[in-house]
Amino acid sequence: MQLSELAEALNADLVGDGSLRVERPVHPAEAAGPGDLALAMEPALVELLETSAARSAVLTDGAEPPAGRLDGYLVVRRSRYAMAGLMEAFKRPPVLAPGIDPSARVAEDAEIGEGVTVGAFTVIGAGTVVGAGSVILDHVSIGAGARLGAGCLIHAGARIGDRVELGQRVILQPNACIGPDGFSYVTPEPGSVETAKASGKVEAFNTEIVRINSIGTVVLEDDVEIGACSTIDRGTVAATRVGRNTKIDNLVMVGHNVRIGENCFICAQVGIAGSTVIGDRVVLAGQVGVADHIEIGHDSVIAAGSGVGRKVPPRSVWAGYPAVDREDAFETYLYTKRLKFMFNDLKTLRKKVKALEGASDEGAGSHESAPGDNR
Amino acid sequence: MQLSELAEALNADLVGDGSLRVERPVHPAEAAGPGDLALAMEPALVELLETSAARSAVLTDGAEPPAGRLDGYLVVRRSRYAMAGLMEAFKRPPVLAPGIDPSARVAEDAEIGEGVTVGAFTVIGAGTVVGAGSVILDHVSIGAGARLGAGCLIHAGARIGDRVELGQRVILQPNACIGPDGFSYVTPEPGSVETAKASGKVEAFNTEIVRINSIGTVVLEDDVEIGACSTIDRGTVAATRVGRNTKIDNLVMVGHNVRIGENCFICAQVGIAGSTVIGDRVVLAGQVGVADHIEIGHDSVIAAGSGVGRKVPPRSVWAGYPAVDREDAFETYLYTKRLKFMFNDLKTLRKKVKALEGASDEGAGSHESAPGDNR
Amino acid sequence: MQLSELAEALNADLVGDGSLRVERPVHPAEAAGPGDLALAMEPALVELLETSAARSAVLTDGAEPPAGRLDGYLVVRRSRYAMAGLMEAFKRPPVLAPGIDPSARVAEDAEIGEGVTVGAFTVIGAGTVVGAGSVILDHVSIGAGARLGAGCLIHAGARIGDRVELGQRVILQPNACIGPDGFSYVTPEPGSVETAKASGKVEAFNTEIVRINSIGTVVLEDDVEIGACSTIDRGTVAATRVGRNTKIDNLVMVGHNVRIGENCFICAQVGIAGSTVIGDRVVLAGQVGVADHIEIGHDSVIAAGSGVGRKVPPRSVWAGYPAVDREDAFETYLYTKRLKFMFNDLKTLRKKVKALEGASDEGAGSHESAPGDNR
Repeated sequence: MQLSELAEALNADLVGDGSLRVERPVHPAEAAGPGDLALAMEPALVELLETSAARSAVLTDGAEPPAGRLDGYLVVRRSRYAMAGLMEAFKRPPVLAPGIDPSARVAEDAEIGEGVTVGAFTVIGAGTVVGAGSVILDHVSIGAGARLGAGCLIHAGARIGDRVELGQRVILQPNACIGPDGFSYVTPEPGSVETAKASGKVEAFNTEIVRINSIGTVVLEDDVEIGACSTIDRGTVAATRVGRNTKIDNLVMVGHNVRIGENCFICAQVGIAGSTVIGDRVVLAGQVGVADHIEIGHDSVIAAGSGVGRKVPPRSVWAGYPAVDREDAFETYLYTKRLKFMFNDLKTLRKKVKALEGASDEGAGSHESAPGDNR
Repeated sequence: MQLSELAEALNADLVGDGSLRVERPVHPAEAAGPGDLALAMEPALVELLETSAARSAVLTDGAEPPAGRLDGYLVVRRSRYAMAGLMEAFKRPPVLAPGIDPSARVAEDAEIGEGVTVGAFTVIGAGTVVGAGSVILDHVSIGAGARLGAGCLIHAGARIGDRVELGQRVILQPNACIGPDGFSYVTPEPGSVETAKASGKVEAFNTEIVRINSIGTVVLEDDVEIGACSTIDRGTVAATRVGRNTKIDNLVMVGHNVRIGENCFICAQVGIAGSTVIGDRVVLAGQVGVADHIEIGHDSVIAAGSGVGRKVPPRSVWAGYPAVDREDAFETYLYTKRLKFMFNDLKTLRKKVKALEGASDEGAGSHESAPGDNR
Repeated sequence: MQLSELAEALNADLVGDGSLRVERPVHPAEAAGPGDLALAMEPALVELLETSAARSAVLTDGAEPPAGRLDGYLVVRRSRYAMAGLMEAFKRPPVLAPGIDPSARVAEDAEIGEGVTVGAFTVIGAGTVVGAGSVILDHVSIGAGARLGAGCLIHAGARIGDRVELGQRVILQPNACIGPDGFSYVTPEPGSVETAKASGKVEAFNTEIVRINSIGTVVLEDDVEIGACSTIDRGTVAATRVGRNTKIDNLVMVGHNVRIGENCFICAQVGIAGSTVIGDRVVLAGQVGVADHIEIGHDSVIAAGSGVGRKVPPRSVWAGYPAVDREDAFETYLYTKRLKFMFNDLKTLRKKVKALEGASDEGAGSHESAPGDNR
């Protein structure tokens, strides 16, 4: 690609020789030859251009490259956004022969769209529909009666259960599981958790556990992405649903009957328990846990590691375990840091008050336990 | 199925026309035709029957359906328990051709019971025994010398290592791993963790790490279920063991040598470190962490996100990180919420005492640091 | 194996008959025959030798076996280190036919070293190099242009993406994923998380999410081990890197661009967010979360369940959420346990001060809110 073409693709300003050929974007320190395009969108990286072998670079607005080192460079504004354009221009999609691999097991009545790629040993079940241009790598399992929209990308080892529906351009990373059964059981009489919630005590014993089968499905809307080894359980009766353009990271658990809105970010190792409803544009940072049967309002952001146990209003920023408004969580945190001071201050006051009492009322000694006795 | 047959299966009271045909259970709002059975076992759902297209429904004891909307309905007592019966009556097992798929790789000396179903590309190792009626989907790996009891259901991509033993009716969800090696290493001299535990300081460096191989196995007893992408490591010498009818959710980690009792619920993303012993009927809620070499007594319930670091007596309800009795955890939590009040109260008292001291002893000023100086 | 041979392998002292044949190491209570070697390296286990069927055993320095029960035994010093030797002597590697399974799909231009074993249905992509003596089990996916060093062991269902590089003797447990795409997106204007971090409030809405493709790779250096269902995302431009001899447990998430040093232990369910740098010999206990773009210094130990949000100096022992020096975390914890005492003490003092004020200044009553009014 010519530097001028890239400038156009990124909507960037071009300085210097636009005819330069750029072949791969690299860290300035790793540039090895003339085709290497140095990414120097932070001040510390600009300095590295002094010694870099790169003859071309990408800089942010206002940065000044070292004199005489570059033959040409691009100037971008929001550097993180420019990265998206750069990685699109130089993308490296999975290497895969076109067409349907002869070892793949595609059901006779499956409907495979035009230009679909299917890798080795992949299984596509009876009555399943795969939209045009979808790329399905090796070792994928797609059950019966499933639907994949056009332009999906399904990585190796992903499992798509019977009747699961994927919209257009859905991406599943390796070993993601869409449609395992929900974790749903019941005891004939109220069980230990039910009594513990009601009375705080275990007053029943879970001796006769009965399974509640999941006969529902999962729907992933257009442009959803699901990370490696993440699991989206099927609904009991209806569908577990992930809204358009929502992005889910690796090792995330989405329980049965959960509904997630559009444009959400669900980071790695988040767990969302059954029947919970997540609004649009919600961000759940890494390792967040969300209880069952609750609601998180639109545009809320939940800090990493938080445990959400009750309804969250829209546009909230919550943190902690149990999660509360971030400002409250932070205030409580700051006060716990002052506990030692408070404890000692209390001790001093106690002595002073005793002295004052002694002064005002000679002989009336009071019996007080020492702090240490308390535990 | 006729409504009267379903009434019998659920041990429910039948009201109206028992000859009605019901084909699928649905949310009242999603009923589309005469075969749809509306599940209206909560008050809000009963209201929806007013406008639902359903002609039949399931209600709980005491609920009153809108007049003239239904041709027949069932009345159940414990609605969650009725759900188990309903989902059994309308279950939708995985769609799979009977028999052993020609692409499956079954070892010559493997013993495959009567009526076993094996999916495409599944591998069954030398000397392995599979009990009658078991259903094994596609892309499953079963090692050598393994044993599966009758009636097991093994979903796509599950990995069952050499010598692993499954009882009867064990269910493995997709990509579950039974029998990876334990995470077990040692340094020739005590390592950094050992010194940090002993002295609170890092006084050794883990430079020469040696692996401890796992030569043990895993035993899952009858009616155990393991969730998608969960991993149960094999024991070092003996077996990691999961007791009869224990249910384990997705993305759970069970370390080497762990023993879990019967009828437990281990929810999603729980981690249980090596050699720990869990009693019978224990409930570990989502994302709980349990330290190695400890014990959790029978019938205990551990709240979501808790970290269990020491022995838990039977019938305990524990919460927090580190986990303690739930009442204590809750009390501590409530007091931390009062910290700001306490801090301000302390400040006021300090001033008052100073004033009293000044009154009782003019001129004897005391030097005190302000709270803010403390950090 | 003869007991004398084992003594030599373990560098242990031999007592009694060195010609005894030992076939399998067992728990003293599980010994069934003359070939069983009882592992009795703890006092409680030595007692069991009284009733054990074992005729040989392994003991630690100073332990005294019951008289007349054993024909021979070994005495070791550091018992955990001896376990490594024992499990090596009696190791049980995966059962697998030598050579390349005819069902495996190996690209014509892949370079397969001498003595490599490849299991059923495994796929090896174009231009990939596999080092001599490596053992690759069934259902493994190895992409194009990947490199595996000599002596690797790749368990069933592991996914190795295009261009990923593994050093020598790397072990991947079942269903591990090396090289999924990074979780990396951007909005054209600053998004909700950026505004929440800056102002504590959600002031932007993530409506137009753009994907940043990952064109980098993953490098696992010599002797690295990755647990079952763990995921190591590829770098955006360069490589996500795991240093020599670092051991990673099951269900761990390593984000894009992360660099982990040598000889680390990363325990189960740890999550490390993008671009973070972990030093050498670092120990992250189970379920630890580490934020993005931070650094953890050499030899640090982070306690289970901690959330690391800022730079950690070398040789630190940290704990808590957010993680701080373990001593500080422990101190804060102890003070929170005294909160009830402090609260009551404060109440008493308040009364006493009021009484003193009343005594020193009759009639000047002060208005005070009760603690409960505070929330």
